Amino acid sequence: MKNFISVNDVENIDALVAKALHFKESPLANINLGKNKKIGLLFLNPSLRTRISTQIAAQNLGTEAIVFNIDKEGWALEFAEGAIMNGTTVEHVKDAAPLLGTYFNIICIRTFPSLKNRSDDYAETVINAFIKYAGVPIVSLESATLHPLQSLTDIITIKENMPEGRRPKIVLSWAPHIKPLPQCVANSFAQWINKWGQADFVITHPDGYALDTQFTEGAEISHHQEEALANADFVYVKNWSSYNNYGAMPPVTGNWMPDAKKMAITNQAKIMHCLPVRRNVELSDEVLDSPDSLVTQQGSNRVWAAQAVLAELLQSI
Amino acid sequence: MKNFISVNDVENIDALVAKALHFKESPLANINLGKNKKIGLLFLNPSLRTRISTQIAAQNLGTEAIVFNIDKEGWALEFAEGAIMNGTTVEHVKDAAPLLGTYFNIICIRTFPSLKNRSDDYAETVINAFIKYAGVPIVSLESATLHPLQSLTDIITIKENMPEGRRPKIVLSWAPHIKPLPQCVANSFAQWINKWGQADFVITHPDGYALDTQFTEGAEISHHQEEALANADFVYVKNWSSYNNYGAMPPVTGNWMPDAKKMAITNQAKIMHCLPVRRNVELSDEVLDSPDSLVTQQGSNRVWAAQAVLAELLQSI
Amino acid sequence: MKNFISVNDVENIDALVAKALHFKESPLANINLGKNKKIGLLFLNPSLRTRISTQIAAQNLGTEAIVFNIDKEGWALEFAEGAIMNGTTVEHVKDAAPLLGTYFNIICIRTFPSLKNRSDDYAETVINAFIKYAGVPIVSLESATLHPLQSLTDIITIKENMPEGRRPKIVLSWAPHIKPLPQCVANSFAQWINKWGQADFVITHPDGYALDTQFTEGAEISHHQEEALANADFVYVKNWSSYNNYGAMPPVTGNWMPDAKKMAITNQAKIMHCLPVRRNVELSDEVLDSPDSLVTQQGSNRVWAAQAVLAELLQSI
Repeated sequence: MKNFISVNDVENIDALVAKALHFKESPLANINLGKNKKIGLLFLNPSLRTRISTQIAAQNLGTEAIVFNIDKEGWALEFAEGAIMNGTTVEHVKDAAPLLGTYFNIICIRTFPSLKNRSDDYAETVINAFIKYAGVPIVSLESATLHPLQSLTDIITIKENMPEGRRPKIVLSWAPHIKPLPQCVANSFAQWINKWGQADFVITHPDGYALDTQFTEGAEISHHQEEALANADFVYVKNWSSYNNYGAMPPVTGNWMPDAKKMAITNQAKIMHCLPVRRNVELSDEVLDSPDSLVTQQGSNRVWAAQAVLAELLQSI
Repeated sequence: MKNFISVNDVENIDALVAKALHFKESPLANINLGKNKKIGLLFLNPSLRTRISTQIAAQNLGTEAIVFNIDKEGWALEFAEGAIMNGTTVEHVKDAAPLLGTYFNIICIRTFPSLKNRSDDYAETVINAFIKYAGVPIVSLESATLHPLQSLTDIITIKENMPEGRRPKIVLSWAPHIKPLPQCVANSFAQWINKWGQADFVITHPDGYALDTQFTEGAEISHHQEEALANADFVYVKNWSSYNNYGAMPPVTGNWMPDAKKMAITNQAKIMHCLPVRRNVELSDEVLDSPDSLVTQQGSNRVWAAQAVLAELLQSI
Repeated sequence: MKNFISVNDVENIDALVAKALHFKESPLANINLGKNKKIGLLFLNPSLRTRISTQIAAQNLGTEAIVFNIDKEGWALEFAEGAIMNGTTVEHVKDAAPLLGTYFNIICIRTFPSLKNRSDDYAETVINAFIKYAGVPIVSLESATLHPLQSLTDIITIKENMPEGRRPKIVLSWAPHIKPLPQCVANSFAQWINKWGQADFVITHPDGYALDTQFTEGAEISHHQEEALANADFVYVKNWSSYNNYGAMPPVTGNWMPDAKKMAITNQAKIMHCLPVRRNVELSDEVLDSPDSLVTQQGSNRVWAAQAVLAELLQSI
């Protein structure tokens, strides 16, 4: 593995999941692997869960990650080639990235989409500029279009809850929210489940919320949530804003919040969500508080996902 | 000790003070106790002294605490059961706390009072929700009504400066400030000194500034500062806003700022303050700069108080 | 070395440079020197490069520095003796510094100039108050008038690129910017190069941008950039605001941005800049992207400069 930006950086998903589960059993198995290595966590947007789980993963590998919150420092980066920098950007990525590459053995970056300019967002300008200029492995802590550490966590959690002796049915269901959210978690989950290929996979969402087909191809798409939920073993609940009418929230008819009644249609499905979740907007209390909810287990697995990825990269440098 | 929220969590104050003084002698005595343990410091409000002293205490126990400044992240927590989260709160404590409980072996939290809604503040909603949902020991880094690490520090410092062979007289004196402050430090000091029981204890404050009797019971209350100061061995100076007219600053007659003239009434008392102190508003330069001032020693003892508490909790998990 | 505030704290520049280059060869040579030592990084102003390089330097010496961002906490310090603190300052340096001195073995501080009050800025009030009251070694992470870690880095980088067998010509050239910047980097570079004394040193800037002569004395001053650049071996490019008309940006005639045409006048000079650099405002793309640019090497040497200074101080305590 050279970088960790999408599922395409992973040669063998099952092996990476196995590595994560090994760390869950023995957190300190590779406690010397990161010793005296330098890991930087660069945040262009806020983060708590991802930051903390990655810091703990680094600690378990014997090193303290160094956090730098770019978003709080007013340190606006320039990405345009040839820019005359007489405006608000104070440093070009061509200068910042190579230097950070001399400080760190691995650079982990979080950068959100604008949700305004789709072609810019989907070009993954920030992450790609760091890959181009930093000269060290880059790990996405969520980018404009994907959230691969979350998706790896999701597959780890599914693996821990697999029905015995048969292929599970996994449903990714759109759910309501009060503001437009990125498509990252949904795009990334679709991309990973499709490549993993060990489940029947259905994505259900209202009209106007189709995801980019480069990620969903291979999944069945349904606009009928209840049909989709029938016999599901896992229901992954997530809101996202429109890809086609980029960043918008087209009006939705009907109630798309999964509740106990809807869950009754499933095969006593396990409920997943990446957190934070808006209770009684995205998911009802009764579902989140039921024994079928995996959300804490899922969030807790973030540590092992991050640790598996950092370990893989540390082994390769 | 299961949590460290108030003096009621402490079985034996003298033993805990002795443990702190042992660490002051030998900071690295238990350098392996925290090795590979995870300690989280969660700030819903700003902190410098408390944060740094707790980080250093953790380092002395062989671990690096992970700091997360919730107040800077716009990550507003919901505490109401059954809330429909379509407003400004983005995550329910029922989801956040259990997850943080999987990341950390100990969670330390700072949360200030609103000074607007007394029953909410005095219910200690935030701390109690974390105790209920996190499943790991919770340490208060100052809560809505108490500041137990400060009070433990205060008793350590008093112990280091005890008059020989007799019971000291300790006076907690209200002092002026320019804005309404929480009652935490005063409540907590009163609660600890009362439970400790090894001093004659007087609280003096102007009319309108009575503290909650659940904390002060056992102390003599006086509205005459100079009478109270007579023969004092320790004078703890602190401002607080009104408990009865909650969060208000009722007008005060006379000068309540301890200065050299007032200190002359005492038994050459040692002066204490939790810092930060507004010079020449709460306390005069001449008093703060005199050899009787313990404020630096007191602030410095914060490390050993935090280290004793963390060590106690680490030993119990 | 007792503190590291200016070149005057350094007994032997060459020895310190040699120490830094030794760490560049063997980053972990002194991995136990800082073990269980406490290093605090106190930021009254934002920092990324300086903060990260100093944190990495500390890690290489076996300790984790503790960062405290004062500027983000609204923790305004009072510096005036005898102040009645009924305004916006919440803690006097006479109380804050001695306490921090009990927490840390070394305190590193960043504090920017106001660019409004020259005599205050040039009195270095903040740094000097900490030296006076903290009782432990103080390291400047850039102060109101100087940036000694940058200058040490600069000499390290020059040493790595010295022409063989002859004295180099070094030119410090003013360059345009869109807003008034401190004089620190330029003052400090001049002070260090002058004391080092192993180069012919020319400072070139437009009328109105003369630096304080206490730092420049010994250098040749020229108002003709192209004359100054002739036969230069190193060109250090930097903007600064006016010292005489303090903090102002007097109008400049002609184009002062070094580009390929101007560099052609030099002896194929190496280009230096402390970063961040405004591309095509301070320096052209073609120069920054040429093989003669040392800016990444220079920024990368920040680690070894910080490590040499911290090691020196740790050895002395």
